[in-house]
Order: sequence, then structure tokens, then C-alpha cells
Amino acid sequence: MAAQEQHPLHFNLFIFGCGHHKAAWRHPGSPAERVGDIAYYEELARTAERGLLDAVFFADGHAAGDVAGGPWWFLEPLTALSAMSRATNRIGLVSTVSSTFYTPFHAARLLASLDHISGGRIGWNVVTSMFDSEARNHGYEQMPEHAERYARAEEFVEAVLGLWDSWGDEAFHYDRAGVFADPDLVRPIDHRGEYFQVDGPLNVPRPVQGNPVLFQAGSSEQGRELAARRAEAIYAVAYDLPSAQDYYGDVKARIRRAGRDPGSVAIMPGLVTYVGSTEEEARAKQDELDALLPTAESLQQLGLFTEQDCTDWDLDAPVPDLPPLEEFTGPKGRYATILRIIESEKPTVRQLLGRLAAGGGHCTMVGTPEQIADRIAEWHEQGGADGFNLMPPSLPGGVEDFVDHVVPVLQKRGLFRREYGARTLRGHLGLPRPPSAH
Amino acid sequence: MAAQEQHPLHFNLFIFGCGHHKAAWRHPGSPAERVGDIAYYEELARTAERGLLDAVFFADGHAAGDVAGGPWWFLEPLTALSAMSRATNRIGLVSTVSSTFYTPFHAARLLASLDHISGGRIGWNVVTSMFDSEARNHGYEQMPEHAERYARAEEFVEAVLGLWDSWGDEAFHYDRAGVFADPDLVRPIDHRGEYFQVDGPLNVPRPVQGNPVLFQAGSSEQGRELAARRAEAIYAVAYDLPSAQDYYGDVKARIRRAGRDPGSVAIMPGLVTYVGSTEEEARAKQDELDALLPTAESLQQLGLFTEQDCTDWDLDAPVPDLPPLEEFTGPKGRYATILRIIESEKPTVRQLLGRLAAGGGHCTMVGTPEQIADRIAEWHEQGGADGFNLMPPSLPGGVEDFVDHVVPVLQKRGLFRREYGARTLRGHLGLPRPPSAH
Repeated sequence: MAAQEQHPLHFNLFIFGCGHHKAAWRHPGSPAERVGDIAYYEELARTAERGLLDAVFFADGHAAGDVAGGPWWFLEPLTALSAMSRATNRIGLVSTVSSTFYTPFHAARLLASLDHISGGRIGWNVVTSMFDSEARNHGYEQMPEHAERYARAEEFVEAVLGLWDSWGDEAFHYDRAGVFADPDLVRPIDHRGEYFQVDGPLNVPRPVQGNPVLFQAGSSEQGRELAARRAEAIYAVAYDLPSAQDYYGDVKARIRRAGRDPGSVAIMPGLVTYVGSTEEEARAKQDELDALLPTAESLQQLGLFTEQDCTDWDLDAPVPDLPPLEEFTGPKGRYATILRIIESEKPTVRQLLGRLAAGGGHCTMVGTPEQIADRIAEWHEQGGADGFNLMPPSLPGGVEDFVDHVVPVLQKRGLFRREYGARTLRGHLGLPRPPSAH
Repeated sequence: MAAQEQHPLHFNLFIFGCGHHKAAWRHPGSPAERVGDIAYYEELARTAERGLLDAVFFADGHAAGDVAGGPWWFLEPLTALSAMSRATNRIGLVSTVSSTFYTPFHAARLLASLDHISGGRIGWNVVTSMFDSEARNHGYEQMPEHAERYARAEEFVEAVLGLWDSWGDEAFHYDRAGVFADPDLVRPIDHRGEYFQVDGPLNVPRPVQGNPVLFQAGSSEQGRELAARRAEAIYAVAYDLPSAQDYYGDVKARIRRAGRDPGSVAIMPGLVTYVGSTEEEARAKQDELDALLPTAESLQQLGLFTEQDCTDWDLDAPVPDLPPLEEFTGPKGRYATILRIIESEKPTVRQLLGRLAAGGGHCTMVGTPEQIADRIAEWHEQGGADGFNLMPPSLPGGVEDFVDHVVPVLQKRGLFRREYGARTLRGHLGLPRPPSAH
């Protein structure tokens, strides 16, 4: 077990509404009425901290989305995480910030300020954003092309890193008879790029962590290359262990080729867990959520995803045979996921709808704490993951189950920390503090 | 005293570093080492809340400034106010947000999110920003012209108000068998302007206050017009009662001409106070801070402000005669302030340096709590102010002095609240919640 001791597991809690199952909010006991209440998010962060998780994480988007179908965006992540940082002491706090819609100065400043407020616990999930509906909220007619978005993101990250490094660590003198800060340790960056012109210096001193931790989640060619060059931790999508190993092997090799240490960059696939004291109890939890899906809409949506008329499919019968991937003319990614779920899980129609409604292409583990710990250990030992981005199907119950039942099993097996060994997110992830350029 | 009972006083605490006196940080007991510590700002907000003040307020800038001379920017205001909102229950929280550097969607979203986090206590001080050094951090070569900045600000405010109103108050149904929110109550705004194109809707529901309270501080013609049309509370600069009355009369008339109720818009000049149990003790506090100013630099700076060689002026002698305003060829505003201070206060050179280092053109009141309450009442009764934006020369002592000694005198005289009558900033300011457009 030496490998695990050298590289212990990492867990992030991916916070989203009432949970990652689309119907979670429909449960009578769901916190639907609390999705705008900061105290709800503070409680989730405290639960995650009780479980010694590395961080909590918010995705982000810049368009309102389908408000009828369930909770979508509500609080803006940076403002929410500031409050959550004051309700916790050790856990990391990761915010998605778009390199397409912010200026590098805003992003660097907001994240640096949060790193000071939280005492060095901030991570930045760099995204380029995707939807024209988002672009049209920020003055674009449509999203820039994929390649341009990534070129812009590369330069954006470079400018932000420059701004974070514009103050030396020793800048403050507090010399009451002399200078407050040393102007020689506060330098312009004079960034002159293709997309951004930024003089600097930042008007926030160097972050506690030097740099807040850079997260990335690209699966495209350019996304993987950006991750290889820049990411310090990576969120991934992997349906099963073989696909996780493929991604893991590919990205670790890219990191090595980029001249960096692949061992230092944690790869964390998304993970949906249903935990029960017996396997039956776990399955019952899953069935209970699946039963909450509005049937007609779900079948109609499945019809769009599969190019079939599903409206009269029997919910409790096995999924009918579907044409092979080659014959499918719509978006292939999701269709491939559907075929894979059918092949490996032989679900009923209702179960398929449930799987698509909770995590989709992400790995789902259903069982006892020991069974789930077994599979986590398997992914970890066999080169599929350095940890997981937890996507509980329902909140707060799903994270409580993980923290109270799965974490102790992992601790007993020596796979997870028994206390926080550090005070910063960098520390939790085993990442060094970057030296100052000054 | 009927007038005061109808329009009680309003007070904001303007938080800045170790206080508004440039040398405050040099005092041995100053919190210089804490200007990046969120707990320091939380404590200031709690002190202001103990004093039942309407709000705390942050200015903002987008360039690092003179780091040698004292604390300047450190924490970013929106992230800081989120944490401060969780350390308090009732007090308002006002952030400056630049209409030149943000997009309306970002500004609307961040402020709306904070309004939810704080339970309806957010105010927005709309500024257009001023300095090329700030512009060059956000990709401009220089600041847009004054007129363009204000035209842009007008449209920016319009777009932000539209976004805040894009969700109806009754949008949420939480209907577990039906819809989470009613899509008919979440509408695009389709803003198509000269400067901004914003589809909407916002991805944050309607703020608790409907709109966070709009503050403005313009003194130029365009600034006063923007304030007259849009501001719900106004920060002002007034050296003495006559100049306060001039500004107050002019802006209230403009508000009336804009078709709004002048009585609903509080005008709050900046106010620097030195409070002592005797007038001598108050003067001693002022002298103590003034004595901390580095003499050579201050005299050199005064030389620039006055176009004189001040380097050998006797610090403890009266200020030598200066040429009249008409003969001065540099920036006239500050020179006029200097002439006015000399004429009305007959200061020594050191006292003049101190006055310029703490508030400059703002009103300064030095004396016992009763003396200061007298002057506050005088400004209030005689049409100079509806309240004040408190600029304590040193923090935290300056606000503690005001809260513990001046507030009780004002309460005894029936000029200030004895408890909060409302839970929102709108409520504290007597402003109605704007009805939804839906």
C-alpha cells in the first residue's frame, strides 16, 4: 500500500443546488427553499470539512438556464465562497471563473482577495465558458470559437499569474517611521499580449498561497494541453475504470511532456455515490430519487438524446435495443454514454433516466461504505484517479453519507487523512508554495 | 424638532485602511499589520452596527497607488463585504463598483448575490473611475473622456436595473410535482444600447431589496445630473455649512426637476471627527496624529499644491501669506481648499498639513460629543445634510469614539434612532422597495 501512503486520496465536494440528481429538489425533504440561503452552503462546507475533504467546489455559468426544471445558478460563487470561508477553518474553496467573460485584473484581484480572506484556501477552476446565451449577457454576439477561447485562456492565466506575482512576499514593512510597503517589491507586469494588455501591479498583495491553486477540467485536445501546462489539479469525467485509465494515462503523459511532475497534479473524476448500510438500502435510495423524475418530460428528452420515439416505453422494462453509435446522427458523446450504461448496467427505462439525471457520463457507485471504498481504492491503485470530485445525487444527505460512512472506512484502510495536515489548499494537495519572482 | 423626527439622521462609516488621516498607520497602536485581515473589517462593521449606523462603505480603485505612504487598497470590497455581512445582522453594506471596468451583468450579479447573502443590506456606490493607471489594468490605453464615462454610467445603471428586475418576486414555486420556478416570471431584458448589449435574464433571482440601494457621489455637472435621476443616497464633499447648503440646495432642486421626491434622497457629506471628553483632549488627538506626518515629504507635497518653496517653513508658525486663487496656475480645487482652511482656521503649518492629510476638503469637527452633536444638528436643521459619511481620522478608535460618545448625545436629542427599525438598508434609509415590473 506504499503508493497510497505517498499519494493519499483527494476529495472535493462539488456543490450544486439540492444535489446532482435532477429530481433531488422534488423530494419532500429536499432543501429546495434554501438554495438561495447562504447558511445552507455554509452548512455543506462545514460537513465537508468535518469529513476532512480537500475542498468544496462551485461550477459557474452566465445564463439563467432552465428555471422550471430545478435549481440552477443562484448565488454567485466568489461572493458565496467568501462567506463560506468564514464559516470554516481548513477546507479549500474552489471557484470557477471564466477566462472569456472577466478581465485578468478582475479575476486575479477577486481570487487574491479571497485567498487573503480565507487564509490561503482558494482554488480557481479555469473555464472558457460554452454557451452563446452566456456570451450575449456580456456583449458578445456569440461565443468565440473553441480555439480562440483556449488561446485566450492561456494568455489569461499567464496575465493572472503575473499579477499575483507583482507583489513580493516581503513587500510590507509597516515601518511607522519609514515606508508602509517597499515600492521596489511592487512592480508592474506590463503584459502585452494578443488578447490582453495589463499594466499591473495588482492592487491586492501576493496571495497567501502565492498562487491560488489552478484547477482545470478540459477534455478536448486543447483543454488537455492547457491542463498539462498549467493545471495543479484536474477535474475529469470518467464513466468507468478503463475510460478513467485512458484519460489519466494520457494527461499524466502530457504533463510529463510539458516538463512538469505528473505526480504533483491530482486527477479527480466526478463521482456519484448512493451509500446504504446494505446494497439494497443504497439501491433503494437511488430508486427513490429516480421515481421523482417527471416521466413524460424525461421520456421526451430521452427521445431527443436517442432519436427514438420513447413516449410509450415501459418504465419498468429493460431499455429496448438501440441502433449502434455509427448510425446515430445527433451529438455522439451523450449517445455513447447511453449505449455504455445500457451495455454495462442493463437498466430498466426508469433506471436509465435516473442515471442520465444524476451525473450522466460520470462514474456512479452504489453500495455499502465498504463496497464503495473498495471501488475507490481500485480506481486509485489501478491508475484511474488520484481522488474524486464528489457529486452527491442529493444534498445535504449525500455528502453526510459519504463523510460519516465512507470516509471512516477509507481512513481505516490508510487511504485518507485522519486530520488536516495543512492550513492551505496547496497544503492539502501536497503542492509547494511557488517562490516569488522578486 | 418635528423636521428631525420626520427625517432622522443617517450615518455611514467610510472604512479605509487605518483611518482617513494619512499618518494614522504610523501611530504605534495602529492596526497597520491588520489591513489585510478580514477580522479587522468585521470588527469595524460590528462597531458601526453597535452604533446603529445605516451602513459601512468601501471606496474602490483599480490601481495599486502609493504603497510606500500608507495602506491603500488591499481586500477587494465585494468579497470583503460578503464576509462582513455574516459577522453582522442589520447594518447596510455599500460597495463602490465601477461602471467603466465591469460589465453590467457582472455588476448586477455580484451585487444581487450579495443582497441575498446579506438579507437585503447591500448598496452600490456607482463610480466611473478616474485614473489612466486603472484603465491600463483593464485593457484601455487611457480613461474614456469624462462625458463618455458618464454616458456609459447612465446606460450601465439602466442595464443593471433591468437585470435586477428580470425575475419576478413570485418566480419561485418550489412545486415538487411541478415547476421549480415559473419561466414566465424570468424574462430577457434585451438591452440594446450605445455601450452595452445584454440579453438577460440575470442568473440570480430578484434581490431581497428589489434593487440594492444606489449611491452616487458626483460633484461635476454630469455627476449631479446622474445623481438627480438615479441616486437613492448621495455622498458629498462640503468643507463648511455654506458650501454644504449650496450643494444640498442645488442637488435637491435637480432631484425635484427630475420628477423625484427630494425628501427621499439622503445627502451625506463626508465628516472627519476628533472626539474628546474636553475640547483640549479632542485637539490633542488631532495634534497627535498631525505630529506623525513625515515632515519633509509633507512640506514638499505642500510645495506642489501651492507652487511655493515650503521646505524651510516653520512647522509651528502660522502659514505664510499665499497668492490669491486667481494667480494660481495649478489645479484650483485643492488650492481653494487650502486658502479656505487658512482663512477660517488660522492654522500653523503643521496643522494645515494635518488637515490636508485627513479629509482635505471634507468638513472636520473637533470637540466634545456635545459640541460635535451641536454642529451635526446645525447642518441637519439648516439644510446642509441629511446625514454624514463618517471618515474617522484613525480606526478603530475614531469610530468607537463616535459610536460610544456622539451617538448617545444625538439619541438623547431625538436626532438618531435608538434601535434599528428595519432589516434592510432600504429600510434604514426610509426607501420603499421598488415594485417588480412583472
